[in-house]
Amino acid sequence: MNYRFSDTMESFKSSAVRDILKLTQGKSIISLAGGLPNEQYFPVEAVRDAFSRVFDQGKGVLQYGLTEGFTPLRESLVKHLARSKNIHVGIDNMLITTGSQQAIDLLTRVYIEPGDVILVEKPTYLAAIQVFQSYKARLVSVDCDEHGMNLEDLELKVQQYNPKMIYVIPTFSNPSGKAWSLERRVGTLDICKRHEVLILEDDPYGELRFGSGETFPTLFSLYGEAENNPVVYTSTFSKIVAPALRTGWVVGDPRVIRNMTRAKQAADLHSSTMDQQALHQLFEHFDLYSHIDLIRTQYEARMRQMLELLKAQAWEGVHWIEPKGGMFIWVGMPQGIDTQELMKYAVEEGVAFVPGVSFFADNPENNKMRLNFTHTDSDQMKLAFERLDRALNRMRETAAL
Amino acid sequence: MNYRFSDTMESFKSSAVRDILKLTQGKSIISLAGGLPNEQYFPVEAVRDAFSRVFDQGKGVLQYGLTEGFTPLRESLVKHLARSKNIHVGIDNMLITTGSQQAIDLLTRVYIEPGDVILVEKPTYLAAIQVFQSYKARLVSVDCDEHGMNLEDLELKVQQYNPKMIYVIPTFSNPSGKAWSLERRVGTLDICKRHEVLILEDDPYGELRFGSGETFPTLFSLYGEAENNPVVYTSTFSKIVAPALRTGWVVGDPRVIRNMTRAKQAADLHSSTMDQQALHQLFEHFDLYSHIDLIRTQYEARMRQMLELLKAQAWEGVHWIEPKGGMFIWVGMPQGIDTQELMKYAVEEGVAFVPGVSFFADNPENNKMRLNFTHTDSDQMKLAFERLDRALNRMRETAAL
Repeated sequence: MNYRFSDTMESFKSSAVRDILKLTQGKSIISLAGGLPNEQYFPVEAVRDAFSRVFDQGKGVLQYGLTEGFTPLRESLVKHLARSKNIHVGIDNMLITTGSQQAIDLLTRVYIEPGDVILVEKPTYLAAIQVFQSYKARLVSVDCDEHGMNLEDLELKVQQYNPKMIYVIPTFSNPSGKAWSLERRVGTLDICKRHEVLILEDDPYGELRFGSGETFPTLFSLYGEAENNPVVYTSTFSKIVAPALRTGWVVGDPRVIRNMTRAKQAADLHSSTMDQQALHQLFEHFDLYSHIDLIRTQYEARMRQMLELLKAQAWEGVHWIEPKGGMFIWVGMPQGIDTQELMKYAVEEGVAFVPGVSFFADNPENNKMRLNFTHTDSDQMKLAFERLDRALNRMRETAAL
Repeated sequence: MNYRFSDTMESFKSSAVRDILKLTQGKSIISLAGGLPNEQYFPVEAVRDAFSRVFDQGKGVLQYGLTEGFTPLRESLVKHLARSKNIHVGIDNMLITTGSQQAIDLLTRVYIEPGDVILVEKPTYLAAIQVFQSYKARLVSVDCDEHGMNLEDLELKVQQYNPKMIYVIPTFSNPSGKAWSLERRVGTLDICKRHEVLILEDDPYGELRFGSGETFPTLFSLYGEAENNPVVYTSTFSKIVAPALRTGWVVGDPRVIRNMTRAKQAADLHSSTMDQQALHQLFEHFDLYSHIDLIRTQYEARMRQMLELLKAQAWEGVHWIEPKGGMFIWVGMPQGIDTQELMKYAVEEGVAFVPGVSFFADNPENNKMRLNFTHTDSDQMKLAFERLDRALNRMRETAAL
């Protein structure tokens, strides 16, 4: 049988992270590569209790649900967004998705034609790049610094490329861990409003804020109401409750949500209603906000430990931005250190990370790497840096030969 | 904001079933329209027990899972397929999906280019038509009778249109309830093998067999092994356990499965692992096969009641094929009775069905309707037919005026 796959398959290159996981199979490797939350803080008893409450309601809980999502969960989320994000919308502005990944996919499906330009951050989330490429969008990176997108470069590229959409993670980005300044948020919204460019604001990490004081308004809330909002906002329970429940949400103008809902109906009818009903019970009977505070504190401690370890290595020419939240530190190695090459030595030494090149839509920088600090325990993290140091030294020695 | 949606949206017309549900909102309507299993037979205590066993395993059950699906569930399904379907494959031939709807979507995504021809049955599943149209496939219907696709017409259309794929529901089809004869199964497989046309065999209802004796081999098993099999086979737990768990599976050549897995990774990373782990526990600790026997017996009794009611109306010129399984009776009204028109009278009288036109990819027949017999209880079903009779009489009187 000669299978005749579509051109789309050209874009589904094997993921870098996946290849790395293959390399590590069967070996005793400490992985700073994944983007996994720490199991230790999964509220498993609360989730068990939530499911139990769902089953108490009888057989009807096992029936088909609405494509839009379980209505009481959408009502809970409307309250959550008002409380935590200053986002004030109704349930008709919201669609429940199978993780925020599906929100990215569905919006691209209803909005992007082959050849349409999408502007992205430099660097940006690799699985979003994959989605955009699978719909044959043309991706263009906008220059960024620690405060967010460079507004002059954004304005220039909006004029030059007439993009249909920009994709951003303004708060504790994957991979860079940074948070955009208010000025860049306002400026980006302003440019996109003027040029009618849709903004996909991806906010999976927004609740994982370190320190107290500073807050980071979502682009969505800076515009205000849902109607005519150029921003489509998505987030997920994966980082604040648990990923296994695969439940995310997306908020926007009712026309955008209605079209995404139609696309979702074709894609999978609806997401698991078991998970959705349980998450509604969790909102009702569990103190989610104290739980988020616990995760914040624990993740910040891990981030501080990783920063100390990085500093202690005193690798010449290494630089990073201190994360204000999230799950990752984005490390720049000196020019000339190709992190894909370094990765081979690292795996031999028993440690893994994600080389930075996968996070660039164009003009990749090969001296960057993404380190995850949420999933590795204290002792292991120390060991990981010893191994990373050995890998770096071996690579330098080999290069010098 | 001027939202610039993609052309894809043109194909996402509002679904007929959805429009009907809107008509019925707030009214006391008996619906023969939906495709819902009967809640009465949902094994809610077994499902509760299965989830409880999952939580007994600790916090790790809440972590991210593999895109391919939860490995022990795939192993359980491999055994199930060998036992129930004479399908003998390994777990590398299988992907877990969010219902079989997602399997249709993902296969279309990796296999179909805009303009590619897909051959379908006449009539066929309306939500599959939606998916194919959303990828801008060109749909061509093949003539069918109660034994399946007309093989001469199939051969002719394969030669004429050079289709990339055919989509079939050979066993207890939605909407027609019929089961293909062995001859048509073998003949269809043979034609597609010779012309290298991929077959998507959709089998959500295959377990809901009425009577004893007669069995219906899947097209997949008639070919044999997964490698080079022109058949991609999909099924679901929605009809044998419960729809809320949104878990289906798809089986095929490893190249097909690998490509669909990549597409799924972009689409939603993976389906709910809560549901997948619970379904694995259900296989281990629940007698699924006795449960399926119970559903079969109950659904067959409802189907017989509906047939009796149909016969008792003695509507002139009405015809149908007695279902050998599944959830639906496909009723042909006399020429001149437009069931979309009839539907308006029916809703006024307090009963709903799905007019047949939605199930045709081309050349719709407007005198057909789909009646669901699984979801309506005995008394209500009697009442439904009284109302349907009144609707038909009123429509005829109005037409005669």
